[in-house]
Amino acid sequence: MVINSNRVENSACHDEPTTSVARSANATPMPPLEVHKVCLPPPRTTVDKLRHRLSEIFFPDDPLHRFQDQKPLKKLILGLEYFFPVFQWGPDYSFKLLKSDFISGVTIASLAIPQGISYAKLANLPPIIGLYSSFVPPLIYSVLGSSRHLAVGPVSIASLVMGTMLSETVSYTNEPTLYLKLAFTATFFAGVFQASLGFLRLGFIIDFLSKATLIGFMAGAAVIVALQQLKGLLGISHFTGKMQLIPVLSSVFHHENESQRKPKLFWISAAAPLTSVILSTILMVCLKSKLHGIKTIGHLPKGLNPTSSNMLYFSGPHLGLAIKTGILTGVLSLTEGIAVGRTFAALRNYQVDGNKEMVAIGLMNMAGSCSSCYVTTGSFSRSAVNYNAGAQTVVSNVIMAAAVLVTLLFLMPLFHYTPNLILAAIIITAVIGLIDYEAAYKLWKVDKLDFMACLCSFLGVLFISVPLGLAIAVGISVFKILLHVTRPNTVALGNIPGTQIYQNLSRYTDAARVPSFLILAVEAPIYFANSTYLQERILRWVREEEEWLASNKRSDIKCVILDMTAVTAIDTSGLDAISEIRKMLEKRSLKLVLANPVGSVMEKLHQSNILETFGLEGLYLTVGEAVADISSSWKAQP
Amino acid sequence: MVINSNRVENSACHDEPTTSVARSANATPMPPLEVHKVCLPPPRTTVDKLRHRLSEIFFPDDPLHRFQDQKPLKKLILGLEYFFPVFQWGPDYSFKLLKSDFISGVTIASLAIPQGISYAKLANLPPIIGLYSSFVPPLIYSVLGSSRHLAVGPVSIASLVMGTMLSETVSYTNEPTLYLKLAFTATFFAGVFQASLGFLRLGFIIDFLSKATLIGFMAGAAVIVALQQLKGLLGISHFTGKMQLIPVLSSVFHHENESQRKPKLFWISAAAPLTSVILSTILMVCLKSKLHGIKTIGHLPKGLNPTSSNMLYFSGPHLGLAIKTGILTGVLSLTEGIAVGRTFAALRNYQVDGNKEMVAIGLMNMAGSCSSCYVTTGSFSRSAVNYNAGAQTVVSNVIMAAAVLVTLLFLMPLFHYTPNLILAAIIITAVIGLIDYEAAYKLWKVDKLDFMACLCSFLGVLFISVPLGLAIAVGISVFKILLHVTRPNTVALGNIPGTQIYQNLSRYTDAARVPSFLILAVEAPIYFANSTYLQERILRWVREEEEWLASNKRSDIKCVILDMTAVTAIDTSGLDAISEIRKMLEKRSLKLVLANPVGSVMEKLHQSNILETFGLEGLYLTVGEAVADISSSWKAQP
Repeated sequence: MVINSNRVENSACHDEPTTSVARSANATPMPPLEVHKVCLPPPRTTVDKLRHRLSEIFFPDDPLHRFQDQKPLKKLILGLEYFFPVFQWGPDYSFKLLKSDFISGVTIASLAIPQGISYAKLANLPPIIGLYSSFVPPLIYSVLGSSRHLAVGPVSIASLVMGTMLSETVSYTNEPTLYLKLAFTATFFAGVFQASLGFLRLGFIIDFLSKATLIGFMAGAAVIVALQQLKGLLGISHFTGKMQLIPVLSSVFHHENESQRKPKLFWISAAAPLTSVILSTILMVCLKSKLHGIKTIGHLPKGLNPTSSNMLYFSGPHLGLAIKTGILTGVLSLTEGIAVGRTFAALRNYQVDGNKEMVAIGLMNMAGSCSSCYVTTGSFSRSAVNYNAGAQTVVSNVIMAAAVLVTLLFLMPLFHYTPNLILAAIIITAVIGLIDYEAAYKLWKVDKLDFMACLCSFLGVLFISVPLGLAIAVGISVFKILLHVTRPNTVALGNIPGTQIYQNLSRYTDAARVPSFLILAVEAPIYFANSTYLQERILRWVREEEEWLASNKRSDIKCVILDMTAVTAIDTSGLDAISEIRKMLEKRSLKLVLANPVGSVMEKLHQSNILETFGLEGLYLTVGEAVADISSSWKAQP
Repeated sequence: MVINSNRVENSACHDEPTTSVARSANATPMPPLEVHKVCLPPPRTTVDKLRHRLSEIFFPDDPLHRFQDQKPLKKLILGLEYFFPVFQWGPDYSFKLLKSDFISGVTIASLAIPQGISYAKLANLPPIIGLYSSFVPPLIYSVLGSSRHLAVGPVSIASLVMGTMLSETVSYTNEPTLYLKLAFTATFFAGVFQASLGFLRLGFIIDFLSKATLIGFMAGAAVIVALQQLKGLLGISHFTGKMQLIPVLSSVFHHENESQRKPKLFWISAAAPLTSVILSTILMVCLKSKLHGIKTIGHLPKGLNPTSSNMLYFSGPHLGLAIKTGILTGVLSLTEGIAVGRTFAALRNYQVDGNKEMVAIGLMNMAGSCSSCYVTTGSFSRSAVNYNAGAQTVVSNVIMAAAVLVTLLFLMPLFHYTPNLILAAIIITAVIGLIDYEAAYKLWKVDKLDFMACLCSFLGVLFISVPLGLAIAVGISVFKILLHVTRPNTVALGNIPGTQIYQNLSRYTDAARVPSFLILAVEAPIYFANSTYLQERILRWVREEEEWLASNKRSDIKCVILDMTAVTAIDTSGLDAISEIRKMLEKRSLKLVLANPVGSVMEKLHQSNILETFGLEGLYLTVGEAVADISSSWKAQP
């Protein structure tokens, strides 16, 4: 038994309702013990609680804290800065920053141009759409976006999902105009969806695409695309005999994904796509009389983005498909954009407001859908290059857009002889980089259920369909949460001699059972989904403990202490379960007390009047005080 | 600062892997502090862990514990007792028990006969089906069931759901045979579903129908049925002018639901339905020449249940409907049956094995579907009467079945003149009793989100459809769990002076901030769904604390302690979040340490190699030890 003999005064609780649950002084003439009252949280009205809860749900980052205690003019400036981050860094923008941004902007442009053309092909769209998409959206993002390192443009995941989903229903070869219309419409809906998520501050929805899900999803999608492209490549391999190019290019491009790890090598990966496009185009031009079988991009129109708002498709049989594709590509591109933005913000220690980013990306896609762009977001690979090339602000996106502008206005004829083969190679390299088997292995090592979610996402996308594969993986992730809630751990605690510490008996070998007590920690909130289980499980603990004590000829237990520290919430079923357990234990002449209920649980215990039936002496602040107080009361009663 | 000066030796952990995470002795020449190692759980293989996890999921009640260390013959007997509980109580069955069971059996028969006829009508089935269903299933349950007080037969919820769902597609007036076939088929599938849930030990699935959901669902369903029946009643009111009967009957029957609360009055409620049936039938016989407009039950065939296995419908356009209806009525009747069984078992302190009950109820329905019965389960109202009438064993069900047998064989002609009106009144009374507004009010008082689930279930069932209404309510309940996980509480802790207790600063006014420390408790497992939120929220805590300290001119914080006691699980995203937070705090020259990670979290921290980057001195067993050790190390470094 561990009783601290030093005398400590009872802690004072808040005045109002706590007195009703405060423990009365010991009736038995025992030496005073260190027993503290269990307090209710300070009383709050339902409206107050709701406001607090809603602000935690929708405004966890407290975005308005900077507006507090400011003058109206300052508030206006802060407001402008809030909605248009350009006002934040604009005034301090210097030539030195411009120099850094210029270099990184040109660098990512050299990556964005070949990737833009390739990814548009991945989405089964005309190559020029990829360039258009690297022009308007980055400009809009540079005004609205809050990340300084995000390189905006088309990305592989969203492109391939759009390509896969749309071409399941509409053929891009037979009905190219309808296909294009649907692509713009899907982009529009992606933008609307993204902006509304941000505006309604529902950004947490994308958190449900866990990392495990995404790893599996990307690997599955990458395999699909790689096989598709490889089929195309193999189809022409007997014309060229140049298949060796691919492994070579692969090994070159493969550095791209390591650019973050080896910053000094990023030039290689950044330069590789453009270099290979230029070299292969020159080669094609030189050998064009000899190589007839190799398809090239062909004629590309010069000029800026034409408007496409007249091509949006708001009625007709494929509207549902466009909306579905829009939502899915919207979620996926949002996930990539936000994750990339947060990654680089963390590296440079600034904040990226997820919900604001969503609004920015959404508006950029809505504007894009009206100017011949398809879904864009912050690309991981180009943002990494951008960061390593020394980008300081979002101006690098403006520089990139300017470079794309020059290309669109003057350089388009140069791409006429670029072989499709090289675009397929760029695509394959990009998507193979999405297969992160190391991360999958780490998942397996650390968390088997996370690995299961990853595997199901992979197999589902590969063998069923993209939306269903993702849905299955999200389902498994949610199931994992529910499983943990439905079957929570319960552990028996013992005392570490000489201390007031109570720890898991099976984990700490020096922890000792406290005679006559069974101390159980419940490691989950008590909900409808686990109240029956916990009821049965606690009774089983009591039965097993009694059997063990009987077979070891020790004295019987007389009191069960539930350590409620980890019971972070309780609902009405949970409250019923607690009183049910108490009734059953009472029938076996066992006392049940609760130790350290957290604020919200304490509130509910109080509101449900369970405390009255429970007896006020059934609550203790710590397990140690419960043990000390109860055993001293036993000593007092002979 | 709270430092216990009494010297305690470091606790010994398990030998194997823990040494790698055990804290090294203090390098600084400080007086030895009470610092305990944080242990890993004892090492287990993946297979062991999986086995433990599966046994917790599927066998939480350890059903085989009685078979351990027994001789083969004893095991056989125990096995028989396990599968056929009749062997358990059969040998000790006495005349005294029979007397009690006889009285209660006859009592519930007097309730079961009129209710059976009425509920069959509620399911749009011929009245005789209700009597058949009160004969075969109770007999089967008496052999397999483990509850001693469950009164088996048709129940209102399952009847009305079956009636609503089937008649949405098939008209029971135009195609009575098809309707009957579908009803038997749905019953068959309900039985298969129930038995498989029990057999696969997936019983926890019914826990997802929370009490809140069911309260709302039953109220909604009751309103639908009451309105339907009332329409029928009003339709004939100008013939009879006897509408006053209903409120009278209602007030009589209303006692039924209170029979549990007022055991002495149960005779009234138990006798009321039969009495009113008899009285109204006599009245009809006497006045039959004058009352032509009132419909009566009409001819009922004498004789036992005919077989209906030839009527099962395993192919055809309505198979899907039959399966859907079967699963839904199966789940609902299971929920009622198990809940009722558990309620009375708790009152008499015996165990009801949920999964075994499911098998019993499932087999009883499968058998029922082959003998002209529709879905049956343990009825709440009749079980309460059964309990109050002194039932001792499941033999009361046998007596009830015998009484129904006598009725079927000899008394059927007596029901010829029973007015349909009285059946409608019985139905309305039964379903009005399902509206438990007091429970709904309690939900509102204790848990607003539970109340929301209840309300949505009510409105969904009322205005959309039964399956969708239930799905919405289950969705809300699950959403509530997810919301709690997605937006967990984080609280700042302070020290209660003179103790090692650290408690919520906003709840315990006497808890004091520890200078230079920010101690945060995270009140949820850290998952993909909340890792981003927690990351932002913890950084916001740091920011707000720094602002508060600066405005109060106190010394800055130097160390953040995360109390992990309530972090009952962590996944790979959570692990990433922890190292992310640590990196960000390090950039601000703040130290991050973890206090009291639970076993599974400790294991994952170890497996993910996060501990190595974290530094071994970043783990403490309690917040108190962390504070004492870190502040003493600061004192040592000037």
